[in-house]
Amino acid sequence: MSAAVTTPTEVARDAGPALPELMRAIGVRARQAARALALTAGERKRAGLLAAAQAVREAERTILAQNALDLADAKAAGRPSAFLDRLALDPGRVAGIAEAIETIAGLPDPVGRVLARFERPNGLIIERVATPIGVVGVVFESRPNVTADAGALCLMAGNAAILRAGAETFRTASAIAAAMNQGLAAAGLPPDALQLVPTRDREAVGLMLGGLDGAIDVIIPRGGRSLVERVQAEARVPVFAHLDGIVHVYVDATADLAMAQDVVLNAKLRRTGICGAAEALLVAEDAVTTHLAPLVRALIEAGCEVRGDAAARAVDPRARPAAPDDWGREFLDAIIAVRVVDGLDAALDHIDRYGSRHTDAILTSDPVAAERFLHEVDSAIVLHNASTQFADGGEFGFGAEIGIATGRLHARGPVGVEQLTSFKYRLRGTGQTRP
Amino acid sequence: MSAAVTTPTEVARDAGPALPELMRAIGVRARQAARALALTAGERKRAGLLAAAQAVREAERTILAQNALDLADAKAAGRPSAFLDRLALDPGRVAGIAEAIETIAGLPDPVGRVLARFERPNGLIIERVATPIGVVGVVFESRPNVTADAGALCLMAGNAAILRAGAETFRTASAIAAAMNQGLAAAGLPPDALQLVPTRDREAVGLMLGGLDGAIDVIIPRGGRSLVERVQAEARVPVFAHLDGIVHVYVDATADLAMAQDVVLNAKLRRTGICGAAEALLVAEDAVTTHLAPLVRALIEAGCEVRGDAAARAVDPRARPAAPDDWGREFLDAIIAVRVVDGLDAALDHIDRYGSRHTDAILTSDPVAAERFLHEVDSAIVLHNASTQFADGGEFGFGAEIGIATGRLHARGPVGVEQLTSFKYRLRGTGQTRP
Repeated sequence: MSAAVTTPTEVARDAGPALPELMRAIGVRARQAARALALTAGERKRAGLLAAAQAVREAERTILAQNALDLADAKAAGRPSAFLDRLALDPGRVAGIAEAIETIAGLPDPVGRVLARFERPNGLIIERVATPIGVVGVVFESRPNVTADAGALCLMAGNAAILRAGAETFRTASAIAAAMNQGLAAAGLPPDALQLVPTRDREAVGLMLGGLDGAIDVIIPRGGRSLVERVQAEARVPVFAHLDGIVHVYVDATADLAMAQDVVLNAKLRRTGICGAAEALLVAEDAVTTHLAPLVRALIEAGCEVRGDAAARAVDPRARPAAPDDWGREFLDAIIAVRVVDGLDAALDHIDRYGSRHTDAILTSDPVAAERFLHEVDSAIVLHNASTQFADGGEFGFGAEIGIATGRLHARGPVGVEQLTSFKYRLRGTGQTRP
Repeated sequence: MSAAVTTPTEVARDAGPALPELMRAIGVRARQAARALALTAGERKRAGLLAAAQAVREAERTILAQNALDLADAKAAGRPSAFLDRLALDPGRVAGIAEAIETIAGLPDPVGRVLARFERPNGLIIERVATPIGVVGVVFESRPNVTADAGALCLMAGNAAILRAGAETFRTASAIAAAMNQGLAAAGLPPDALQLVPTRDREAVGLMLGGLDGAIDVIIPRGGRSLVERVQAEARVPVFAHLDGIVHVYVDATADLAMAQDVVLNAKLRRTGICGAAEALLVAEDAVTTHLAPLVRALIEAGCEVRGDAAARAVDPRARPAAPDDWGREFLDAIIAVRVVDGLDAALDHIDRYGSRHTDAILTSDPVAAERFLHEVDSAIVLHNASTQFADGGEFGFGAEIGIATGRLHARGPVGVEQLTSFKYRLRGTGQTRP
């Protein structure tokens, strides 16, 4: 990190407090902001987010200027073009960031929802009511829009967010966060509800994973596998994340062939780089001629590399042999592993062994097989006769998501604004005492 | 640990595997059992638990014999009488253990509940459906009945349990676990669904807190403050627990006096050793004559020591002065800290500063004050005009609880069988692809 890349929003580390104190102070401010936010009505959160979106629009020039600096550094550092594309903003993308904030502002307030209500024989009325979680730490890499998406989702759920941007997107993220802070302040919300860690120092991530003396309730990593792996290994606070999406589609002999072709091509090829993209196709033995052959042909003709076991290769000479580690591999590319399995039980075993408990689908007309698959596959998302690319909070109707979790505690599947809440019990009595 | 206390169920550590391997093997078996349990119908879980309860009844003599050995050691070690009472069983208590298992067997199956259901504009039907969590680790101290309660609750929720008994209750807990395992096996359920760690070696706790290579999904400590503190500090997996119950009751001038007297006495004195027992009484300044004086008198006359601030002491010469650390102190005894506060805001500030976010109550006839208290106090359980001793899963109608959690993720408040479940998303389509 050279002095040349320091921006006005970055802390001058020589003059400022040491990193642990800096981070601790961020935690304390986040906790205070969270307390205020927890008691803020939905309308005021909404107004704050709309003001933040407007401020982002108005800061377009500054944001693009900072983004140009980030991009120039990333190019100079020889970053690949996919990386540069994730980092790059233009006026349309800045407008998209503002629109995403506005979409989140339009969601129903998840706080205060009565999740359950029961009356006890003694007349006590017990309600389980949604509350914010508190403080959410978000660690992300190159996409600057995460600042806005994650910050807005946390805030709508009444949580304060501590955001840690990747070094390459630091100036862009800082400019977006500064604009949002201005908007929040103008609407009377605590700007500390959204704090971007004001340094590229990588040690800041380690401190966040330690929880900042109890100031952080949950950590959400947004980025590649190595980031998620580090966060899951080191975090001393709960993590909402998934490491991979080893997504399977199982097709049996009763599946409607046209439907299966549409769904398999969509699941694999609509976008190959997302976690819901299919990585393996399993076909029942008695569907080799009827289904496997046309599916492999369609995949290859659509530009997908097929890596098959012997039975799969037998139906099409263009298929290549699958290596042993192609089972359970996340290609994130136009490549699919294809295997013939001895029916549903073998498919379930394969998914149990090689899957990542993210998203898996069955294509069948047999309702018994469908129900068994939906029941027995232990993944966050299981589908019958639909594309695995629906594994997305927006497609679930959640408005927006901060990611997809494969853990089993609190949040699982797409993490939207509701999953960013906790709850408490509210008891109303008329003087009841316990016998 | 001397050779003399080794029982048939305890691993002969000299001959057996090293502790890390032993614990890892327990984790692997628990994970396998959890997979089987996750797919076990409610009726079969119920039958297994009823068989386990019956086996406990039939093993009464063995259980009592082992308990006598534990008790003799504890007496020889000079354990206090409260400790011995928690440890001691008699035929009535053994029957109580069996009945508790039967009560849990009678709960509705929490697995498979459809928690939410929505149809998307494209016709996809999305259901959020309850699943087990997986493997629950329970670390407990002297009460041998935790073996049965915790094991049965985990099992009814489809989870495998790894139970670690305190050294003093080890033989009793082993006898109960052995009986339950027999019952489960007789009913065709995997006995590894309930494993008691077969050694008193304290290192086993540390290994469990490390998660046993990912085999444990959540840890639940059951015992005193030092146990919970250690678990919260060291666990690398999520923990459902509370450290203290610093429970407040706030009374304002509009509270019905007779009701307030009943509720305050019940909240403090019904049982002083439970986490829902009140530890501090806050009274509004304008209620000193009308409410504070009779409440302090009633408490003292009921045998409770009152430790008050100057204003509280002024109403009754028998009140003693509160020390600064009496605010925020969990007496777990017939002692209460009493303070006069300048109205609702001051009460909220006091609770925010000294409370433990467990359970707090307001006694008032003012609906606005009541709603503000219920909304603004950030505790797992907040009550209006009812005793804080209702902070209990049984009183909530949960049938049984494994403890009370003050964390904000996944479980909060009483942790019953529903809070021991996770969920997944089940999507049913007719060939939908994502545009």
